[in-house]
Amino acid sequence: MVGRIAMNDPEKLIGAVDIGGTSIAVGLVNSAGELLADRDMPTAAAQGCEAAMARIADALRQMIAETAPAGVLAGVGVGCTGPVDSKAGTVLDVDFLPGWQGCNLANLLTLALGVEVALENDANAFALGEWTFGEGRHCRHFVCVTVGTGIGVSVINDGHLLRGTGDAHPEIGHHVIDPAGPRCFCGASGCWEVLARGPAIAHRYHQATLAAGASGSGYTAEGVCALARSGDVLARQEIEREANYLALGIANLVTMFAPEVIVLAGSVMDSADLFLRQIQQRVSESCRLVPYRQVRICTSSLGSRAALLGASVVWRQRRSASPTPAPYWAHHA
Amino acid sequence: MVGRIAMNDPEKLIGAVDIGGTSIAVGLVNSAGELLADRDMPTAAAQGCEAAMARIADALRQMIAETAPAGVLAGVGVGCTGPVDSKAGTVLDVDFLPGWQGCNLANLLTLALGVEVALENDANAFALGEWTFGEGRHCRHFVCVTVGTGIGVSVINDGHLLRGTGDAHPEIGHHVIDPAGPRCFCGASGCWEVLARGPAIAHRYHQATLAAGASGSGYTAEGVCALARSGDVLARQEIEREANYLALGIANLVTMFAPEVIVLAGSVMDSADLFLRQIQQRVSESCRLVPYRQVRICTSSLGSRAALLGASVVWRQRRSASPTPAPYWAHHA
Repeated sequence: MVGRIAMNDPEKLIGAVDIGGTSIAVGLVNSAGELLADRDMPTAAAQGCEAAMARIADALRQMIAETAPAGVLAGVGVGCTGPVDSKAGTVLDVDFLPGWQGCNLANLLTLALGVEVALENDANAFALGEWTFGEGRHCRHFVCVTVGTGIGVSVINDGHLLRGTGDAHPEIGHHVIDPAGPRCFCGASGCWEVLARGPAIAHRYHQATLAAGASGSGYTAEGVCALARSGDVLARQEIEREANYLALGIANLVTMFAPEVIVLAGSVMDSADLFLRQIQQRVSESCRLVPYRQVRICTSSLGSRAALLGASVVWRQRRSASPTPAPYWAHHA
Repeated sequence: MVGRIAMNDPEKLIGAVDIGGTSIAVGLVNSAGELLADRDMPTAAAQGCEAAMARIADALRQMIAETAPAGVLAGVGVGCTGPVDSKAGTVLDVDFLPGWQGCNLANLLTLALGVEVALENDANAFALGEWTFGEGRHCRHFVCVTVGTGIGVSVINDGHLLRGTGDAHPEIGHHVIDPAGPRCFCGASGCWEVLARGPAIAHRYHQATLAAGASGSGYTAEGVCALARSGDVLARQEIEREANYLALGIANLVTMFAPEVIVLAGSVMDSADLFLRQIQQRVSESCRLVPYRQVRICTSSLGSRAALLGASVVWRQRRSASPTPAPYWAHHA
């Protein structure tokens, strides 16, 4: 039996990393797509990206030692708040990661760990997780929407991630849905994100309470949702308004992509039950030219695991896309 | 020399058909992608689709006899005003083709001509023409917009036509850009098409002249463009408004697809010089999160030829995608 164990290949593990502006999640995924272990750490962007990559490498080594000591790290997939140059492995001009512009995260992690590293925009990584292991399994046309501090949208069309020129990640969350809306840092007025993101809920509710003569402050989207559930009239009005904005954007996604599945995720969608009726109604009223009845709109079943499972898919996809080395006998034919 | 001519393969010709609600264009394309001949005929939808297909088949036979009598018809590609089921070859519920619902145009033409026929939505066929032979050559990420009676948009992402569930053609022209706008037959209020299509220009100009106490009628988009050029103040105001709507939609396309090229076509874009400055300005102001400077926005260089050249590409693509029959010796190995 000892001989048989020795003959077995060691378990191949994929390191999975999700880098946000505030925190970094690191996980270990096996070849069956199971998340064996994961942990969170602060991003501490001000300490520089070299320090952050060193902490990620340390965490991965510790997790292997603790969870799968007989395993071998085969590679690392990274989802990073964007925009990033996914082919080169570098961070572009990311608001949330000051000082990291131009850093090659993939090369730094390869240096620390000695394995190949694949980098991707975090919205794309999340969508790949949901598409491979979550509600998007078995479909060819898939859209994933994350509504939280911002709105991230990723589209998988006929099994391929939608990309733009130079592999750019399209910014579908910033398409204009109401030009009368406020100005966004993207340059447009009334884009979907500036109207429907979580902080917009809190801001509009605050304005409404001020207008009503109240003096509260420090509201959050989650708080407004809770107030609406408890019957607060102004909060319920704000939830109606938010549902209208969410419905406008999601109906546009149905019209523009007619996917099989749209998955809704992110902190605002933890309260999806407050919004889904209005979203469904808008879609059935205003998307008549596409087969809208065939579009399933649902919430994420993986939750936060989607980001790490998706990061492992980023590595697997990049790996399988790279040209396979010819077998040695091809050179001796 | 006679023997040598007899040894040559006969020239392979592709039949190209563009079916609209009013007229049908039929053309003959050689394997080098040259349009050898073309002619127009009324659609006469009320006579039924069998009669129309018989007229198309007659026209193709005549054109071969007159233009390339030594040629052989290899197949036919058809672009048809949508929605259509491109795989099955049938017309779905098309407003402009009353009574044709469920007709299998591909089977009818195969019956008449004895060759394979490939059907596609006309917006997709037009885009394939521009992408293969026009301003979209050599690019992987391409968007084609036709602004006329309606707004048709087709997207080629990484070399593949964007499709939805069940091969549906997404209706990007009907995404909402201003919910305060009028209602459209798609079900939405303020979609791009209802605000920016040619008849909307004529309608708004008419309203403006009525409000100013004038009594004219029968305006067209082309007419309003001509009036604007001649200095008519109300027409110039309407052109400003139209440019704003066109700019909103095109900036959304830049944000959502970040393509290498956007080609503008259709009757309204014959006056593109009246709109392009405002479009370019809006894109540079409001698409900052994507590499908008790398997006070339231009008008079609093929014009009406794009539809027929595109129909020939529809046939060629379908042909190359279908499994190649094994050579006869494979069965005798």
